[in-house]
Amino acid sequence: MEEQGTEISTLGEFGLIDRLTKDVALKNPSTLKGVGDDCAVLEFQPGQEVLVTTDLLVEGVHFDLTYVPLKHLGYKAVVVNLSDIYAMGGTPRQITVSLAISRRFTVEHIEELYAGIRLACEVYGVDLVGGDTTSSRSGLLISVTAVGEAPKGGVIYRSGAKDTDLICVSGDLGAAYMGLQLLEREKVASAGQRDFQPEFQGKEYLLERQLKPEARRDVVEALAKAGIKPTSMMDVSDGLSSELLHICKESNVGCRVYEDRIPIDYQTAVMAEELNMNLVTAAMNGGEDYELLFTIPLHAHEEIKKVPGVKVIGHITAPSLGCAMVTRDGGEIPIRAQGWNALVSDAPASPSVAPTSDTDSSDKAE
Amino acid sequence: MEEQGTEISTLGEFGLIDRLTKDVALKNPSTLKGVGDDCAVLEFQPGQEVLVTTDLLVEGVHFDLTYVPLKHLGYKAVVVNLSDIYAMGGTPRQITVSLAISRRFTVEHIEELYAGIRLACEVYGVDLVGGDTTSSRSGLLISVTAVGEAPKGGVIYRSGAKDTDLICVSGDLGAAYMGLQLLEREKVASAGQRDFQPEFQGKEYLLERQLKPEARRDVVEALAKAGIKPTSMMDVSDGLSSELLHICKESNVGCRVYEDRIPIDYQTAVMAEELNMNLVTAAMNGGEDYELLFTIPLHAHEEIKKVPGVKVIGHITAPSLGCAMVTRDGGEIPIRAQGWNALVSDAPASPSVAPTSDTDSSDKAE
Repeated sequence: MEEQGTEISTLGEFGLIDRLTKDVALKNPSTLKGVGDDCAVLEFQPGQEVLVTTDLLVEGVHFDLTYVPLKHLGYKAVVVNLSDIYAMGGTPRQITVSLAISRRFTVEHIEELYAGIRLACEVYGVDLVGGDTTSSRSGLLISVTAVGEAPKGGVIYRSGAKDTDLICVSGDLGAAYMGLQLLEREKVASAGQRDFQPEFQGKEYLLERQLKPEARRDVVEALAKAGIKPTSMMDVSDGLSSELLHICKESNVGCRVYEDRIPIDYQTAVMAEELNMNLVTAAMNGGEDYELLFTIPLHAHEEIKKVPGVKVIGHITAPSLGCAMVTRDGGEIPIRAQGWNALVSDAPASPSVAPTSDTDSSDKAE
Repeated sequence: MEEQGTEISTLGEFGLIDRLTKDVALKNPSTLKGVGDDCAVLEFQPGQEVLVTTDLLVEGVHFDLTYVPLKHLGYKAVVVNLSDIYAMGGTPRQITVSLAISRRFTVEHIEELYAGIRLACEVYGVDLVGGDTTSSRSGLLISVTAVGEAPKGGVIYRSGAKDTDLICVSGDLGAAYMGLQLLEREKVASAGQRDFQPEFQGKEYLLERQLKPEARRDVVEALAKAGIKPTSMMDVSDGLSSELLHICKESNVGCRVYEDRIPIDYQTAVMAEELNMNLVTAAMNGGEDYELLFTIPLHAHEEIKKVPGVKVIGHITAPSLGCAMVTRDGGEIPIRAQGWNALVSDAPASPSVAPTSDTDSSDKAE
């Protein structure tokens, strides 16, 4: 973010858009027309349901460009939306990207951001089909909308969990949050020194989880291959606690999850120790994991063991039992949502006050 | 924007969204699931093509809340997107609305904004199916994405204009731009006086065009009823000149439009006179008219006369002839895009430097 570059005004809006999108190849047969008209035109197969989700990322609220590379930011802005499509059992097909850009950004900066956006499109087989580009009075703002499809009847809602279902989660939790803590710590330590060497050794996984998350397409595919259809599913963006409560509320059920079953990476544990933070709290409430949280019928218990990277962490109960975590000593702690709330922490100067700091912390369709 | 109100942090994000969307009724059979999950779920009829468009409105760039009521802003933010769907020959069905809100906005402000959003949904039969709500560090930002459908083969692109086609435009042009000039003039004149009485008498139409534009669904329906399928179509958001150039470029044709055929309202003419501005320039380049610009085959000449509110303003030519306006004295002036460019005028303090001040000034699919 410091090099000299080409002022965006030298290209103008149409020029900038041409430059960013001129060699975007369309990959999906459902994309009839991408960039270049009033609307994108899509056509889905009969018997397909269409999924639409959107996320808004605001500089200073959701990301801090002092340590987030623009390419990573572009990648992540796309991935968090694709994650929502996978979390409904769908396949993402198209995205639109709208940007509001302040004067301090050059053409090269925006190209860097787009390099990440395009890489994500490449990796996930998604077409960039439109957007809007304008100026902002302060900072960078990214609004991504993703469109996907799922076979009719194949969409997995939050509302289908049933008593006795098993609760599963993919990957591990809390690492993205610890990555953010690490970046914030080193930012403070560097205090603007130009030759500061941040201490990231042995913590690469945390950085990767924070800066370049992936959507769990592989898990959705593995579940399909194993013949398991989850009864409910969400992605973990606000934190496991918050998402569990959503599923239980929408499904009108309770749940028990077991502290000793929460999947946590070694690096996450080391970092929590260093920062003197409660590890399980971080894993339960950190957010931005973009792992899949889902429930399956009890009879799928043997089958789920064959799906790599998925762990059973608890079970659904009758609604009267409420939502609780069973601790290692057999006690029960009620689950409360402590995920980040972008509106309560209203416009912090830096994401340090907004721990999970990302995107769709929403209770609504997206 | 001055009354006391409820701080948004008292509700939190989920609380705010619940309050804004709790009694949103779904109207379209293609909306299977609206607000309340990771994605909205839509299902279109076989043989339908799906249209997607998006626009980003930034406070201080696209609107000035010193004279734009929040309800009107919400209405307009939706309408400009619906206009893009109609401009492709489609019917809008769903929207998502994302907001970034700074600390100075209260719950009541956002409810006011949503009242406008919901009114537009009501008027145009569109379902609000999702979005994202977060904080911003400065000002209000609105990102709307609209989804629509059109019968297979029924989509009207910019690229279908043919030599000898007639060029038509609905309604009249330049009034929204003059409305903005009027509002800016009165803002300056008021200079913050509390009891200032702006002079709007006899100029109500200009204000309405600027503050509460409508999408021309009626024109699309009238064309269908008259059995006329335009060969190309766009909505006039950046200004007639700019849109004509888009159609001619995409269709690889030239055009002639006649100065004395450009439809201009009486109030627009009076205001141009008052401000000592060139009337035709304002009508050609003002923008934000949200009228439909389209081309039809020459043989539809008699039929188009029966469509109310549509005027033939010129014809398409071979590409070698270029794009020009034929003046009243028979001279020719090359058409150049002078529409507002949000990126050249990079983040003005007020829309006064950004005359057409709105939304999708884009050359891309939306």
